[in-house]
Amino acid sequence: MENIKNYVEANKQRFLDELFGLLRIPSISSLSENKPDMERAAQYWKDAILAAGADKAQVMPSNGNPVVYGEKIINAALPTVLVYGHYDVMPVDPIEKWNTKPFEPIIKDGKIWGRGADDDKGQAFMHAKAFELMVKTNTLPCNVKFMIEGEEEIGSPSLANWCETHKDMLKADIILVSDTGMLSIDMPSITTGLRGLAYWQVEVTGPNRDLHSGIFGGAVANPINVLAKMIASMTDQDGRITMPGFYDDVVEISKEERAMLAKAPFDDQRYMESIGVTELMGEKGYSTTERTGIRPSFDVCGIWGGYEGEGAKTVLPSKAFAKISTRLVPNQDHEKIAVMFKKHFESIAPGSVKVEVTSLHGGQGYGCPIDFPAYQAAEKAYIESFGKKPIPTRSGGSIPIISTFEQILGIKSILMGFGLESDAIHSPNENFPIENFYKGIETIPLFYKYFAEIKK
Amino acid sequence: MENIKNYVEANKQRFLDELFGLLRIPSISSLSENKPDMERAAQYWKDAILAAGADKAQVMPSNGNPVVYGEKIINAALPTVLVYGHYDVMPVDPIEKWNTKPFEPIIKDGKIWGRGADDDKGQAFMHAKAFELMVKTNTLPCNVKFMIEGEEEIGSPSLANWCETHKDMLKADIILVSDTGMLSIDMPSITTGLRGLAYWQVEVTGPNRDLHSGIFGGAVANPINVLAKMIASMTDQDGRITMPGFYDDVVEISKEERAMLAKAPFDDQRYMESIGVTELMGEKGYSTTERTGIRPSFDVCGIWGGYEGEGAKTVLPSKAFAKISTRLVPNQDHEKIAVMFKKHFESIAPGSVKVEVTSLHGGQGYGCPIDFPAYQAAEKAYIESFGKKPIPTRSGGSIPIISTFEQILGIKSILMGFGLESDAIHSPNENFPIENFYKGIETIPLFYKYFAEIKK
Repeated sequence: MENIKNYVEANKQRFLDELFGLLRIPSISSLSENKPDMERAAQYWKDAILAAGADKAQVMPSNGNPVVYGEKIINAALPTVLVYGHYDVMPVDPIEKWNTKPFEPIIKDGKIWGRGADDDKGQAFMHAKAFELMVKTNTLPCNVKFMIEGEEEIGSPSLANWCETHKDMLKADIILVSDTGMLSIDMPSITTGLRGLAYWQVEVTGPNRDLHSGIFGGAVANPINVLAKMIASMTDQDGRITMPGFYDDVVEISKEERAMLAKAPFDDQRYMESIGVTELMGEKGYSTTERTGIRPSFDVCGIWGGYEGEGAKTVLPSKAFAKISTRLVPNQDHEKIAVMFKKHFESIAPGSVKVEVTSLHGGQGYGCPIDFPAYQAAEKAYIESFGKKPIPTRSGGSIPIISTFEQILGIKSILMGFGLESDAIHSPNENFPIENFYKGIETIPLFYKYFAEIKK
Repeated sequence: MENIKNYVEANKQRFLDELFGLLRIPSISSLSENKPDMERAAQYWKDAILAAGADKAQVMPSNGNPVVYGEKIINAALPTVLVYGHYDVMPVDPIEKWNTKPFEPIIKDGKIWGRGADDDKGQAFMHAKAFELMVKTNTLPCNVKFMIEGEEEIGSPSLANWCETHKDMLKADIILVSDTGMLSIDMPSITTGLRGLAYWQVEVTGPNRDLHSGIFGGAVANPINVLAKMIASMTDQDGRITMPGFYDDVVEISKEERAMLAKAPFDDQRYMESIGVTELMGEKGYSTTERTGIRPSFDVCGIWGGYEGEGAKTVLPSKAFAKISTRLVPNQDHEKIAVMFKKHFESIAPGSVKVEVTSLHGGQGYGCPIDFPAYQAAEKAYIESFGKKPIPTRSGGSIPIISTFEQILGIKSILMGFGLESDAIHSPNENFPIENFYKGIETIPLFYKYFAEIKK
């Protein structure tokens, strides 16, 4: 632990400078005009892994954005850790809500501010630096492989196929990921569950052109009015999703596990204050953390149609659109849900409109048992670096690819996240506390150490 | 009738050229960046009225866009016709749906294509040319006054006050307006009723920033989900508006009048084909023309919130917005409804969001009895120029200022509209058949003739 702290201390500023170089690249995977930035971000990662001490690293093509792969094999007999992360980030709109330029990172109030500061450039880069630390201090106890992709924020559409193709190259004992959060810097936690996801775009078409709302209003179905009714019908007054069959595969969590999860300190009042609401809303009979951790959810992520400009335009629009998503719990199959929703949503459309549902992406949920060796090693690492036993938690977020790894590569993942809820990932003013960044770099080598011991 | 036809024939091309000059000015009243174009359009009208033979014409200031006023007083003993029209037009989006440039008018398939071709530059300009015709052929039987405003498409916010200020100047026996439609070029009609209007913008605010839909989804109210439920609750399964008290002042139309209105030939099938729908939707128990003519309606004219870009962004947005309008029937008070909606919509909001309702504009409905002298004169004019007795109809559209004229100036209006349903006003590819343009110029002088006779 001592030499770890010393090495970090001696290289603090350089670690930050190198991360900033990555943060300055606007690698937004959902926008086609940012394609060239994906290539730049991948190259940056390749160079970083090589500089850190990898035997080799390369930018490899996929059906979509390239994947960065690098490795250092010190002894075939030793266990192998496969580090997964992503270099792509979310879009930045609403841009006017940012207090700084999203791709011009700065340090303020002890935090790194910028898109990707946490998710996932900041967290993934901790692994490059922890790897460097182990190499340079001759303490690397395992073989290491890096797999850094560029399509996580759009559901990793190409990575499954890429893994399929490179199965042998990717052989490992555990996949190590930092793309989740912890309860607080004083309260380390390990994510043992992730929600799955299904995401659609719906298009409701009424008349073949925008109509005058006075001349036609009242006689012709208005696609916005109709879409509103269709969306409204998807949830009931108890906050349950009404789609027939939606809950069929949802596993009810036992009283015991619910009690264990409830150990994580949580204050509804502080939670509400942090997001500026005076009342919460969700499924009846479940706590806030249960609503996001062990229960599915239904959210409209975007909606548009008709006149959005200044003033009053009296129009009965031709079309209305929405981006709709559900978060799923482990054991719900996102492909089954994707088909179920399309069928259901089209079935509830009145004959006066046409409805088209397009599935945009999806992923399975994931669960990691706490008696699992890698969990034990991670627990030891946190105890040593934080002086506290981490609490197992379930994240409401999704990393669809995690369950895909298990299916294709047959390798489980351990989610050592160092982000905080206040990091505002996917939102304006994303940030990452410098302290968490360094704590991550210190904790990761300890995981390698204990994982190697357990695996002996 | 003969010399009317001859004069029109001899000046056909010039009439069009002069109208095109007006159509080329993008005088969109709802967009502040188009302010300078309002001034240009007003000047163009002033010159047109003078050139047509007015004693005087001027661009007069108002609290908003200027009003063009002109007059020719030939004999104080003769009746005075006050022509009302507007030089402002609707916005042009969705611009990509236009087959031509909205402000570069062209002739194609016997129609004038461009924003304002019908509403209301094309129709109002007929009066300038009919006036010219009467002056140049020495057949002007009445005094004439012109009042052409630049804010009709945003609800004429300044004209009421302007009329108040210029009451004496505007003294007249009848207000003559061409800003409505006719059943078909073979089936002249006179609009005897207009719907009123109330229009709001609503803003629903949930969390103080966009949130990650995975981490927060299910525990925090999503403003789009909430807005959808609120909008959905505004109408029931019979297509009736659920707002308490909304129908209190709606006058049920007698069987007799409904039968008379039903005389207007109307084919649901052709109507559906013209707008590309296979099923209609509206208030139970009423025909299509009744749904737009004698019943109020509820339409969301625009909605937006969250992510509208390419791909899938998993966000739980901070805000959702909608532009909401109701069409009102005569005897419903738009101000009463405006307050009623704000109170109701804010009252149905769950405590988990903040809702703000802003009234954007409104206007009263209007009714014109068919035994009214000006109606009789108009009827005679149509019979002579079309060889057919016009059918009285009720328009679903609103010209809020018409009822305001009655209140402030104490003058009734006669609505001689020459537009067709296919003119696509307020929509992409607005157009106006040349034949209707010339027919209007021929019919208007006949109205003056018979109105002068009746008033003797």
